Amino acid sequence: MKALVTGFDPFGGDKVNPSSLAVSRLSKKIGKVAVATAVLPTSYARSAGVLREAIDKAKPDIVLCVGQAGGRPELCLERVGINVQDARIPDNDRKQPIDVPVRADGPAAYFSNLPIKACVAEMRKAGLPAVVSNTAGTFVCNHILYALMDIIETHPRRMRGGFLHIPYVPEQAARLGGAPSMAVDDIARGIEIIVATSAARTTDIHTAEGRIS
Amino acid sequence: MKALVTGFDPFGGDKVNPSSLAVSRLSKKIGKVAVATAVLPTSYARSAGVLREAIDKAKPDIVLCVGQAGGRPELCLERVGINVQDARIPDNDRKQPIDVPVRADGPAAYFSNLPIKACVAEMRKAGLPAVVSNTAGTFVCNHILYALMDIIETHPRRMRGGFLHIPYVPEQAARLGGAPSMAVDDIARGIEIIVATSAARTTDIHTAEGRIS
Amino acid sequence: MKALVTGFDPFGGDKVNPSSLAVSRLSKKIGKVAVATAVLPTSYARSAGVLREAIDKAKPDIVLCVGQAGGRPELCLERVGINVQDARIPDNDRKQPIDVPVRADGPAAYFSNLPIKACVAEMRKAGLPAVVSNTAGTFVCNHILYALMDIIETHPRRMRGGFLHIPYVPEQAARLGGAPSMAVDDIARGIEIIVATSAARTTDIHTAEGRIS
Amino acid sequence: MKALVTGFDPFGGDKVNPSSLAVSRLSKKIGKVAVATAVLPTSYARSAGVLREAIDKAKPDIVLCVGQAGGRPELCLERVGINVQDARIPDNDRKQPIDVPVRADGPAAYFSNLPIKACVAEMRKAGLPAVVSNTAGTFVCNHILYALMDIIETHPRRMRGGFLHIPYVPEQAARLGGAPSMAVDDIARGIEIIVATSAARTTDIHTAEGRIS
Repeated sequence: MKALVTGFDPFGGDKVNPSSLAVSRLSKKIGKVAVATAVLPTSYARSAGVLREAIDKAKPDIVLCVGQAGGRPELCLERVGINVQDARIPDNDRKQPIDVPVRADGPAAYFSNLPIKACVAEMRKAGLPAVVSNTAGTFVCNHILYALMDIIETHPRRMRGGFLHIPYVPEQAARLGGAPSMAVDDIARGIEIIVATSAARTTDIHTAEGRIS
Repeated sequence: MKALVTGFDPFGGDKVNPSSLAVSRLSKKIGKVAVATAVLPTSYARSAGVLREAIDKAKPDIVLCVGQAGGRPELCLERVGINVQDARIPDNDRKQPIDVPVRADGPAAYFSNLPIKACVAEMRKAGLPAVVSNTAGTFVCNHILYALMDIIETHPRRMRGGFLHIPYVPEQAARLGGAPSMAVDDIARGIEIIVATSAARTTDIHTAEGRIS
Repeated sequence: MKALVTGFDPFGGDKVNPSSLAVSRLSKKIGKVAVATAVLPTSYARSAGVLREAIDKAKPDIVLCVGQAGGRPELCLERVGINVQDARIPDNDRKQPIDVPVRADGPAAYFSNLPIKACVAEMRKAGLPAVVSNTAGTFVCNHILYALMDIIETHPRRMRGGFLHIPYVPEQAARLGGAPSMAVDDIARGIEIIVATSAARTTDIHTAEGRIS
Repeated sequence: MKALVTGFDPFGGDKVNPSSLAVSRLSKKIGKVAVATAVLPTSYARSAGVLREAIDKAKPDIVLCVGQAGGRPELCLERVGINVQDARIPDNDRKQPIDVPVRADGPAAYFSNLPIKACVAEMRKAGLPAVVSNTAGTFVCNHILYALMDIIETHPRRMRGGFLHIPYVPEQAARLGGAPSMAVDDIARGIEIIVATSAARTTDIHTAEGRIS
């Protein structure tokens, strides 16, 4: 079985994107799963193309995209990507789309088809703070989750995919002040658990992880 | 022009639901818009039926459902309802669905078709903290937003609809401790601005209100 | 019995200070207590002098100073003022003292001698979110609490005094985004309850309001 | 030069106290500073006695007590301990003092005499989120900071002392949900930086680290 895990390049003035830092530390083999990695540009226009190329090259069964969610205290496995782009800041191409769909004729949303609750449960068992999130925002992270599931929907290969939002790393929080953070090693460990859990099972566990609001 | 505004009955042990409190204070006429109101049960099984009956009775052009989002500091106008029910606590029928769709063969999500950004801009101009939200959670609030837009999609009447999540009222925060709150009069004022703005325009303004994550 | 309640003038770029807004709405008579008010400059060098003049003019039995604590969701009745000035931003005289004591030979701290827990309990009974706070920061608010208690310590009149930190008002939160707020009328109501409760009793109630950290 | 660093035993139902976990990982030698460690009971009645014994045994020049501040996202070096005990939960002796002073005839507060701002600056340079805090709460952590500085005030040895509040470790946050955390290794690294910085200098740097409120 093969997995592709992607991070993003830095954006918004940061010199480093912890998603790529964490992805670069992954083992090449997680259990019996061979792991390929790629770095996506933080670009509405280019990220999905780079992702598709990486998929066609790696031929993965599982795809996990990873991006930064500054301010969140936990590893957030996303449930859904929505068909909208609404950028509060410009992306790395200096583009700032407002209320433009990811795919003009696409469905309103795609759900991740990884066993997200089983993954969250396994991360917690391993001592990692993790949660199911119901919004990936409206920036490039949501864009790529939507685009990934859209690729999967139409691709000849059968694949499963999802998106992990990660906290700041301590170095960033030290500069910013007042924000929660997580050690890169713990983030990498979380990613490995998601890959291993997703490889081990196709159905999810039946447990409440929803939010009232 | 006619508007229907709904609140919910109390849930989760609370004696009062501020959404109904606020709705009960609305003027019967907001500008030239006649306002009808209804209270929906906090029930996955029954809320959409009561909403449909209220729609058929009031024959509104605009429907705004209002619900409580305890812990949020602002008036949150929701962008999207997703096709999932994942209840952390039982609803008022003691039902707690997990990962069950709102409508088995429905689309993954529906977007609100109110001019949500124009509404948020007008609320802010009036001195009310307001924001576009990208998740209505997975409890009955999200359920009713999805169900509302599904009704609108298939209904012979042309309608527009949306959902407003509101903070605790001060009386609740006084009991709970540490939570933000908003005066009922300010919540009611926010609702009236949404109704008036939605009546005045069908297209939205072009301004970034997205979130990075 | 007489009370003096003070607010501050605006600082940090704001056009209005909600502490003065709330103070200006107070009744002149709260129960049998005659209420005088004053506005203090947000100035390390001048605020205590203006406060002392207001005290000498009003001859109060109770003094409550009120200031803004942007970001806090509740009415925060302060327990203690510490003998330090450490300014993250300049005051209204463009002074920014760092680690300078309020009074060079003064004690390390002064405790408020209002019945702060009884006041908090009464505010909650009236449906207002309120809490005992253990830090008034290190800006002019802490300065004036320390200076007030220092004046009381050495003044020939027997007085009791304290400090209330209040949230943003909704108009501020609407501009800032993401911050909790409280209606000015609710803030004014909280102040009146503190004055009335402090007038009615000199000893405090025996109830835990501490914090673990 | 010698340093004594203390942690606390678990309290409030937790099985482990990360302060002791972190302290147990410290090097025995930080630069030229010999490091002794001790575990204090989470007890108002007993903690100061155990601390004094550890001081008399270790004969340190620098004393740093470490305790948990669940919910805080950063390493918080405390500025001041206040002369009050106000327990929201019982300590490990099932005692819950309310508004009782640490020392009946003691001063209202003691300031730490470590170079707290230099320590915070060095931790940040090392990529660790850190901040000066102005309240240690009113539970046993504040108690021991006050008691430590009181011991130092009256002890024949010249010592300097302070208190570090630390976040949850990831294992705790994984159980609790929604809380920020920090890896134990990063916490231990922060402690070593505080010890090294305090050994290297007796005066603090002149930089604003105060809070407005």
